[in-house]
Amino acid sequence: MRTYFDCIPCFLRQTLDAVRALGLDLPLQEGVLRKVLAACSALDLGQSPPVMGQRIHRVIREAAGSADPYAEMKERFNHLALGLYAECRGLVERADDPLETALRLAIAGNVIDAAPKSGLNEEDVRRSMLQALTDPLDGDVKEFSRAVAGSRDLLYLADNAGEIVFDRLLIERIGADKVTVAVKGSPVINDALLADAAVAGLTSIVEVIDNGSDAPGTILEDCCEPFRKRFARADLVLAKGQANYETLSETDRDVFFLLKAKCPLIARDVGCSLGSMVVRRSGRATAAPAPRDRGRTRRLEEVQRR
Amino acid sequence: MRTYFDCIPCFLRQTLDAVRALGLDLPLQEGVLRKVLAACSALDLGQSPPVMGQRIHRVIREAAGSADPYAEMKERFNHLALGLYAECRGLVERADDPLETALRLAIAGNVIDAAPKSGLNEEDVRRSMLQALTDPLDGDVKEFSRAVAGSRDLLYLADNAGEIVFDRLLIERIGADKVTVAVKGSPVINDALLADAAVAGLTSIVEVIDNGSDAPGTILEDCCEPFRKRFARADLVLAKGQANYETLSETDRDVFFLLKAKCPLIARDVGCSLGSMVVRRSGRATAAPAPRDRGRTRRLEEVQRR
Repeated sequence: MRTYFDCIPCFLRQTLDAVRALGLDLPLQEGVLRKVLAACSALDLGQSPPVMGQRIHRVIREAAGSADPYAEMKERFNHLALGLYAECRGLVERADDPLETALRLAIAGNVIDAAPKSGLNEEDVRRSMLQALTDPLDGDVKEFSRAVAGSRDLLYLADNAGEIVFDRLLIERIGADKVTVAVKGSPVINDALLADAAVAGLTSIVEVIDNGSDAPGTILEDCCEPFRKRFARADLVLAKGQANYETLSETDRDVFFLLKAKCPLIARDVGCSLGSMVVRRSGRATAAPAPRDRGRTRRLEEVQRR
Repeated sequence: MRTYFDCIPCFLRQTLDAVRALGLDLPLQEGVLRKVLAACSALDLGQSPPVMGQRIHRVIREAAGSADPYAEMKERFNHLALGLYAECRGLVERADDPLETALRLAIAGNVIDAAPKSGLNEEDVRRSMLQALTDPLDGDVKEFSRAVAGSRDLLYLADNAGEIVFDRLLIERIGADKVTVAVKGSPVINDALLADAAVAGLTSIVEVIDNGSDAPGTILEDCCEPFRKRFARADLVLAKGQANYETLSETDRDVFFLLKAKCPLIARDVGCSLGSMVVRRSGRATAAPAPRDRGRTRRLEEVQRR
């Protein structure tokens, strides 16, 4: 997905929310804002929004004087999710369709996001989990189930710390033996790293690799060679969260995007309503890609023109 | 009022709304955004937000290839307001307190704002006018009445085209003989110019001068010498709209700010709730300025830190 004009005010809003949530002092906040403004003035709009996200968070880490300013938040989110794991696993085991329930809980876990919701508590997440069991799911669960059942070599792209605990529920239903999980190569926002996968108990049941990158989502050119090979080899990719959609929506691989649509532009690009839980297969894998692609191109133009 | 960090995403949001409302083509929109981003990266935060507003709208006019891209919108707003003038004048004449009613209608006229509400129609404005008669008014109307009655040389700083028609109602109640109206020196957004004052019928009842500036609000250093002398000589200034508050809130003149608080930061700076109709006297003229100023300084710091 390209960067829309509307992303620009939002980059600055997010930057400001982040430096405030991290408690940077005012001169540091100002310095970060000025650097992000200068970077945005020369931005390549043909690239996906996480390319700027990567730059913004490099600037923020430098200003914070910390390689991982979200470390404490990630620990808190992991702890919070682990506190709900047993209850959620029970829900999956007792469900009529355990795979669908695990899928719903994994998508609901995507509410665990960075700065703006740093005040998130266990009760908020628990409520979100329970609501996900009955909320409408925008996507074809049967198609998802068939694809997952048919896959022999599945790559699961994780998103945030905390959320990764709920990913485990889905991975256990899919069958850990055929799944590889990928996390980020180094810290960016509250995205999951190898340490978070370990805390979530994933490293002991599946192979977990890192993508070598500090970008939100999956910017393939920025990922390490072993990850790219693994990505190319997978017969199916499950990609969690908005940033993975933004960076991979035009891929030629067979990808299912699993996300909560929290941004109106992404919701529009996906073709879903804001706030919905989404399961979307990448364009190339649909039965009739051509007409859908034409419709999509029109929609993109409308968004930029709006 | 200084420029808050939160103003920066908003400058970009407003820029985008403006270039879209004016129908600039996509490459022009992009060029404007990049120039505004570069200007913001070097912004002096000690200055008031309309300093950037002036720069933004110079960039927009250049890109639009028009000295007054809002000309058509202003004409429409004037026409719309003139269509309501007789009805509003009747309301003032039949009111128990005609000055307060005229004051309320003049403030309500401040809903006539640029780009985001370009779809505003007569019925919207009419509804806003009628509602203003009963909505709470945040300010001391008695103090306002006394100050106006005691003034012999009043300067009225107009805001937008259309709105200026409703200013006429208030000016007529104050007594046109002691009032001078000031408009902008050249086009900026939909701010009123001499031509709009003429269409509103003001030029035939009061002296109307222009301030020599193309900035929103009143940036004194940017205004012409005759206007500055007039401003210094006035025994009372009535200043309409948010931009006049932003640029003059720290003046040592005796100013009443009359506005609808449409921006959360301005509302916070004023100390009123968002959306309210406000009458505020400048700090120097209050009975006990010192404690109020201390409170205000604390509030400002909180806003930047938020």
